[in-house]
Amino acid sequence: MFDKNLYVSVTGPLQKDFVNQNLLFQQLFEPESSTYTYLLADKNTRQAILIDSVIETVERDLKLIAELDLNLLYAVDTHIHADHITASGEIKKRMSAKIALPAKAGVECADVYLKEGDILQFGQFSLSVIETPGHTHESLSFFCEMMVFTGDALLIRGCGRTDFQSGSSEQLYHSVTQKLFKLPPETIVYPAHDYRGFTSSTIEQEIKLNPRLGKNNTQAQFVQIMTDLKMAYPKKIDVSLPANLLCGITK
Amino acid sequence: MFDKNLYVSVTGPLQKDFVNQNLLFQQLFEPESSTYTYLLADKNTRQAILIDSVIETVERDLKLIAELDLNLLYAVDTHIHADHITASGEIKKRMSAKIALPAKAGVECADVYLKEGDILQFGQFSLSVIETPGHTHESLSFFCEMMVFTGDALLIRGCGRTDFQSGSSEQLYHSVTQKLFKLPPETIVYPAHDYRGFTSSTIEQEIKLNPRLGKNNTQAQFVQIMTDLKMAYPKKIDVSLPANLLCGITK
Repeated sequence: MFDKNLYVSVTGPLQKDFVNQNLLFQQLFEPESSTYTYLLADKNTRQAILIDSVIETVERDLKLIAELDLNLLYAVDTHIHADHITASGEIKKRMSAKIALPAKAGVECADVYLKEGDILQFGQFSLSVIETPGHTHESLSFFCEMMVFTGDALLIRGCGRTDFQSGSSEQLYHSVTQKLFKLPPETIVYPAHDYRGFTSSTIEQEIKLNPRLGKNNTQAQFVQIMTDLKMAYPKKIDVSLPANLLCGITK
Repeated sequence: MFDKNLYVSVTGPLQKDFVNQNLLFQQLFEPESSTYTYLLADKNTRQAILIDSVIETVERDLKLIAELDLNLLYAVDTHIHADHITASGEIKKRMSAKIALPAKAGVECADVYLKEGDILQFGQFSLSVIETPGHTHESLSFFCEMMVFTGDALLIRGCGRTDFQSGSSEQLYHSVTQKLFKLPPETIVYPAHDYRGFTSSTIEQEIKLNPRLGKNNTQAQFVQIMTDLKMAYPKKIDVSLPANLLCGITK
């Protein structure tokens, strides 16, 4: 079951009205790779975190951070992406933000290495780190105030592929059904991508409706579904992966 | 100032926790016209409202309504769109939903005609109608539980054009600065379109940062900005407008 001690704000349970009035939240979309970037900030301290930034939209996002008068503490990636180049390195060049990456990614360009149960604090709020391997072995999700940022582990009515880059269908099934699906049902799911115009889902909806990982699918069925996908080689992987191992800075 | 009696739920102020647990909300995007469609529902009664549906994505939206087991009461449009064809007529063909349109649109295909102060009830929740003319003379916004659906009246860091289809820069300036900007500052702004990957804003952000309508712009300055835009003739207007006067049903 959901362990309140693990994923709720380190400052203790916050009143929902307080959250609504003091947590700044902005979802942003990059259409070429269909990637969602998320900006979270404490309206009082102005401390902020950016999740899964994309190099193509870095100017938009830096402008937004500046015009909202935010102090970006961390540029975080849920995993080493294969479909776009992260903006984290570029952002670090331009402001004092630290790069936070999964410890298991094994890269050297980060300032902070994240593992299960770690907390990234920003003002009175915090992101809790949940290890959700399977799309890639280092994949993380982040929980914050009844929102979960799932990267490519759990997509809306789908999930990330598991057939390359240290993926494992068995691991992904465990991560989603035993960890993400144990979050409170009303938790809002914010994935790293959507390709059909959905901007969010909920844990409750995905348990009921996810055609791959929903409640009626056993692990064996899920593994078979993923095996049968026979997906094409990722278009941008040969450029994105080497670049992202260097936090997107290639020159 | 914000008149709580006018725009707050007709059932009286609801506790935020109640809203978070019982209001189903889904934002959906149609990429060709960059239109946002919004689905709102009461999780208990399953009664729902769909705002600004698009014919290209009607199958997606009907599938979603079915799989969430919702009873769609109303397909609503904020105004007579010129950039895409509404799905409201098609939806009415396929289920028992009523079409709700601005009274001032002067069309005959709707079941419900909306004017300032009207309420569309769905379960314990309600949409309040705010007349916000200027992009077109009939344009409405809808307020529901600290969210405002602004159509093309207020876009994120922008606004709808005012140079055709009964538009008026003077009216739009009044609608935005004297009505929308009087809503509580933390109200989330959900527009009918965005072209840069933003999914929402807040009243507070738009008062501060909207380059056309923000706090430093007088009406005269706004009128000049809009006059100077000299925008191209809308691509789809000759198809969309006649179709939308018939609720999107042309055959």
